[in-house]
Amino acid sequence: MSASRSNITVPTSAAPGKTSEVDVLIVGAGPAGLMAATWFARCGIKARIVDKRGTKIYNGQADGLQCRTLEIFDSFGFADRAWKESNHMIEICLWNPNSEGVLRRSDRIPDTIPGLSRFQQVVLHQGRIERFFLDSLKEHSDIRIERGVMPEKLTFNEEDAEKEDAYPIEVVLQHLSDEEMNPEQSKSTAGAAVSDGLFRSNLAPDDTEELLQQAAAKGRTSSRETVRAKYMIGCDGAHSWTRKQLGFALEGEQTDYIWGVLDIIPITDFPDIRVRCAIHSANSGSIMVIPRENKLVRLYIQMTTTEKGGATVNRSNITPDMILKAANKTLAPYTLSYEYCDWWTAYQIGQRVGSNFSKNERIFLAGDAVHTHSPKAGQGMNVSMQDTYNLCWKISNVLNGVAERSILKTYQSERRRIAQDLIAFDHRFSRLFSGRPAKDVMDETGISMEEFKNAFEKGNLFASGVAVDYGSSLIVAKPGSSAEQGDGTDVEQKSDKLRVIGKQELASNIKLGMRMPSFKVLNQSDARPWHFQEVLRSNGKWRIVIFAGDLSKKEQMDRYKKLGEALAAPTSFLHRFTPAGKPIDSVIEILTIHSGPRTEIELHDFPEIFRPWSKREGWDYWKIYVDAPSYHEGFGEAYKNYGVDAAKGCAVILRPDQYVSWLGNLEDVQEMDHFFSGFMKVRN
Amino acid sequence: MSASRSNITVPTSAAPGKTSEVDVLIVGAGPAGLMAATWFARCGIKARIVDKRGTKIYNGQADGLQCRTLEIFDSFGFADRAWKESNHMIEICLWNPNSEGVLRRSDRIPDTIPGLSRFQQVVLHQGRIERFFLDSLKEHSDIRIERGVMPEKLTFNEEDAEKEDAYPIEVVLQHLSDEEMNPEQSKSTAGAAVSDGLFRSNLAPDDTEELLQQAAAKGRTSSRETVRAKYMIGCDGAHSWTRKQLGFALEGEQTDYIWGVLDIIPITDFPDIRVRCAIHSANSGSIMVIPRENKLVRLYIQMTTTEKGGATVNRSNITPDMILKAANKTLAPYTLSYEYCDWWTAYQIGQRVGSNFSKNERIFLAGDAVHTHSPKAGQGMNVSMQDTYNLCWKISNVLNGVAERSILKTYQSERRRIAQDLIAFDHRFSRLFSGRPAKDVMDETGISMEEFKNAFEKGNLFASGVAVDYGSSLIVAKPGSSAEQGDGTDVEQKSDKLRVIGKQELASNIKLGMRMPSFKVLNQSDARPWHFQEVLRSNGKWRIVIFAGDLSKKEQMDRYKKLGEALAAPTSFLHRFTPAGKPIDSVIEILTIHSGPRTEIELHDFPEIFRPWSKREGWDYWKIYVDAPSYHEGFGEAYKNYGVDAAKGCAVILRPDQYVSWLGNLEDVQEMDHFFSGFMKVRN
Repeated sequence: MSASRSNITVPTSAAPGKTSEVDVLIVGAGPAGLMAATWFARCGIKARIVDKRGTKIYNGQADGLQCRTLEIFDSFGFADRAWKESNHMIEICLWNPNSEGVLRRSDRIPDTIPGLSRFQQVVLHQGRIERFFLDSLKEHSDIRIERGVMPEKLTFNEEDAEKEDAYPIEVVLQHLSDEEMNPEQSKSTAGAAVSDGLFRSNLAPDDTEELLQQAAAKGRTSSRETVRAKYMIGCDGAHSWTRKQLGFALEGEQTDYIWGVLDIIPITDFPDIRVRCAIHSANSGSIMVIPRENKLVRLYIQMTTTEKGGATVNRSNITPDMILKAANKTLAPYTLSYEYCDWWTAYQIGQRVGSNFSKNERIFLAGDAVHTHSPKAGQGMNVSMQDTYNLCWKISNVLNGVAERSILKTYQSERRRIAQDLIAFDHRFSRLFSGRPAKDVMDETGISMEEFKNAFEKGNLFASGVAVDYGSSLIVAKPGSSAEQGDGTDVEQKSDKLRVIGKQELASNIKLGMRMPSFKVLNQSDARPWHFQEVLRSNGKWRIVIFAGDLSKKEQMDRYKKLGEALAAPTSFLHRFTPAGKPIDSVIEILTIHSGPRTEIELHDFPEIFRPWSKREGWDYWKIYVDAPSYHEGFGEAYKNYGVDAAKGCAVILRPDQYVSWLGNLEDVQEMDHFFSGFMKVRN
Repeated sequence: MSASRSNITVPTSAAPGKTSEVDVLIVGAGPAGLMAATWFARCGIKARIVDKRGTKIYNGQADGLQCRTLEIFDSFGFADRAWKESNHMIEICLWNPNSEGVLRRSDRIPDTIPGLSRFQQVVLHQGRIERFFLDSLKEHSDIRIERGVMPEKLTFNEEDAEKEDAYPIEVVLQHLSDEEMNPEQSKSTAGAAVSDGLFRSNLAPDDTEELLQQAAAKGRTSSRETVRAKYMIGCDGAHSWTRKQLGFALEGEQTDYIWGVLDIIPITDFPDIRVRCAIHSANSGSIMVIPRENKLVRLYIQMTTTEKGGATVNRSNITPDMILKAANKTLAPYTLSYEYCDWWTAYQIGQRVGSNFSKNERIFLAGDAVHTHSPKAGQGMNVSMQDTYNLCWKISNVLNGVAERSILKTYQSERRRIAQDLIAFDHRFSRLFSGRPAKDVMDETGISMEEFKNAFEKGNLFASGVAVDYGSSLIVAKPGSSAEQGDGTDVEQKSDKLRVIGKQELASNIKLGMRMPSFKVLNQSDARPWHFQEVLRSNGKWRIVIFAGDLSKKEQMDRYKKLGEALAAPTSFLHRFTPAGKPIDSVIEILTIHSGPRTEIELHDFPEIFRPWSKREGWDYWKIYVDAPSYHEGFGEAYKNYGVDAAKGCAVILRPDQYVSWLGNLEDVQEMDHFFSGFMKVRN
């Protein structure tokens, strides 16, 4: 494509209709697109989100939710809905043949490593998760999913890419007629032919409204419009139209493993049917059991019809009966049948990563558009949502005038690296899971069950999503090369003067580049316990967490007061980066956790900058916390668990997505200033 | 009134319109009425609920939710919404004058006694609580609140009272025009004049739909209909129309204390404004501080304008300014002001109990219709909801053919006694709170602050709602006189043969007559931890909880298997009381908690009756639990905490409202049979 005003599109004869402008256009309303829209809703960004499908999905599809995904949901206020409706994954049982070849349970391991997160991995179908996003969008914004709307032509004016207020993107959208947009769901899954009655019985009550709206839209006929946008995000799946327009490749390969999937209410004498199981039979393939909500169980079943040697197998011939037969072979001597099937499919594993995640940091790709892999580790939907969770606070910060465009390059650096790691993990895991178990140590073509168990346990840490460790960059002040720690993109802080390195030694369990862990602390004003992550809502604000230490010691209180004075000074970075007339916590919020004792210090002993006053609401009672025992929910021991010195404390800068940017002492105000000055815009 | 076909009504000239029949008519859609409707929704009862007001309320009114109320909400599946939106009450601070007369904090005590319940007392305004009920009704039934509908005439045919399928009640309902039904809310509270703008700003997003419906109803004019009902419940408030038709008295007296109430976002230097406080000033009255959701604080402020000697004071002259001035006098040297007031009122404490809670166990009264008292202990809404929570599973059991009408008398016996206890508590508490603090031990007209603190702490146990202890009756198998343990009503088991007494010594912390406490246990099938109360959903079923003990011991497993055989026998009470063709758990559900070890017993080792099979869904994986440590949520130590012998176990019969009916050994099947035979109907 040419550098200036290139048309990246298939030709169309229709004339575009009305033209309008929007800050961000999101293409695709699956989990990645909905996560993007949710960020924009919370940050007050003018965004539109379109999807060619006529409705959201109602069953089947992705189902695993990682610990980290639940933490993110909670930062938007709806993890509780997922937690309540989902099935919780507690234990994994490994089944494989004993020395006589008889299937038996060889191991039990916890599904989520205890202590890793306040959430554990759960399972809930994608349709419900989309519902939570839709309700959240409705509650917090005017952004609504525009369904039956398909992009048809993309024009990108590359010359304007670095002009801040330009609209370098132009997209022609086609509004589909009712016939055109339905029924995508049953077409897209191989032979999914669940009857209408079953389909309807799976609807939750709060989905009804949407179906009614859809019915109301009937009779609408095709029409076109043109949208001019500052930014665009392609969340349009593995066959991404956006990616194709940009000419970017999805690099990798198809494997020769074919798997069947059944979502059923099982009738069986297999004792662990309500437990996540990895079952290796001696010679009849493998099964993964994923117990789900509403009495359902998902079974991933290896199909023995696979042709050897990488030849493409025709999976369109596979039926539920064939999958069930394969399952019974693997499970023998146990038996499995069902009366109720909610959904089923068959798939072949492909492992691919996108060559580029953005075009000039104006058009971005996310989710399946830039990575595909096997579904069995329950990663896909999570990594997709975390792509746009990483991206869209950055776009919002830029659009809201908080940050320079330079931060946008960190999206590819951070997320393409994650996608590469994911594919490597999936490759290893799929091979171990799809292989025949070794008969003994001499059986070299078989898979060692000990190796499988170890990989499974390590994989669980990876799969939790909390192990994500973003590399050094202008927004993560850690040592080393940004190119090496990311996907190769250069995202260094360019100014030597502004480049700072966080002091990791001040908080052994608050890791630069990783998400802030959560322990319980009490609100100083009312003694209520909060998991500290609950206070770190996703609203686009940067945060400085002041571990104030032991304020009953005069020397420490003096350090804290001195920090307060520096922050409150009219020339402080806090004032410089906050627009005049806006609340002092509107760009950077300061939170305090002191180490107590809670009852020996009064709220009004804290300097005012740490509990800002407003004319209408008086003092702010939600900024100061204490590490102390609660009456009803135990003792979080936050200082101990964060690895922070309870006497002297430290200061932590957190990104709007709760990842740790910097660590330092209470005196390091100049370093904080340098860090923020590296990408923030002076407003005052 | 005469015994047969008496007209209990004010005369009306209008001719009744169409006539229809309903199982239960509920008058009044406040919390008591909504709780009643919720039970009927879950039990499949045909019920209607009418309210003369045009909308539900949106601010002000009652706000405290007891531990027990939250447990009940959770049994219907919506405690999580209240828990999330509410402010949690953690600590109480007592403030009173020191020896120099200067106000200071004298004590800190926990608000909810630790360990009492898995919930703690919270605060949330009544409008949100009504919302949760409305959403729950919509999700589970076709029952909708009929607003702007007022009963006009009540006819009761007493001769038919004991005829099971009769409709002895006839009510003429008037459908009000829009002008007639609005605006009840502002009229009913003394001088409430919060401006329209503030009123609207307080609306939650999910209230909007209802307002739209209300708008659509505009233009409706008065009309009449006649409803014939089997049962009727008057939840129509302190000025209950239903009570007046029945000619029942509300007995008690008005006190001479006047209190002002402000719901504000406070601007103050008082350090404990976000803590529940009881403040006694030396000579300027008392204040109770109740921190609320959305930055609001409710202040109950004693007005110094009270006339002495019981003369009626005109509270209609009171203004928010007067209340604020009184507050500042009490709080001195601290100051208080506000920019935002959400709601305010002034009230005079009256303490009264209804003389009768029912007419022939066909027409019942509940909530404020039968008890009024001071609001400061946050009891009113809770006790009102718990009235109908007690009543309506009983009515449902009778209407569904499960139980004899004899159980209905226990409503008055159990709940009128609670109302009497509540009024006694409120009387004592109000006197201590409204009085001037004693200057020293010689000051006899003053209130001892030590006595106040003790009363407050004891009051907290009462106020939690979990101390409720229902007396002996045909549905609570405990020793002693039912008349003495209740309100005087005779609710004994009439048959000597069927009268059984539970063996309290088998479970020291599962108290006959009290609600089943909750500790965490794991599901045997998937190791997921549940608070045991979560399994005890409110669905109208009776339950037998089998503490099966240590099933790894053959002797104990034999006892358990023998019990299973007795229950599974075709002539067992379980079969006799379950209609033919219905699932075996549809009237009485059997749950097992064994004492482990979890991993040494397989699900299929348990006798089938304890995990019943169905053709469509296979085995039931949600009936068997184990007392074992969890991976992520600690160890409930259920046997230890319930006080049950971990080797031998015991059996517990629970009512549909989770109150304990009976305790016995695994061999006491004959006693279980006798207990249920005392009021259940043979179906098979």
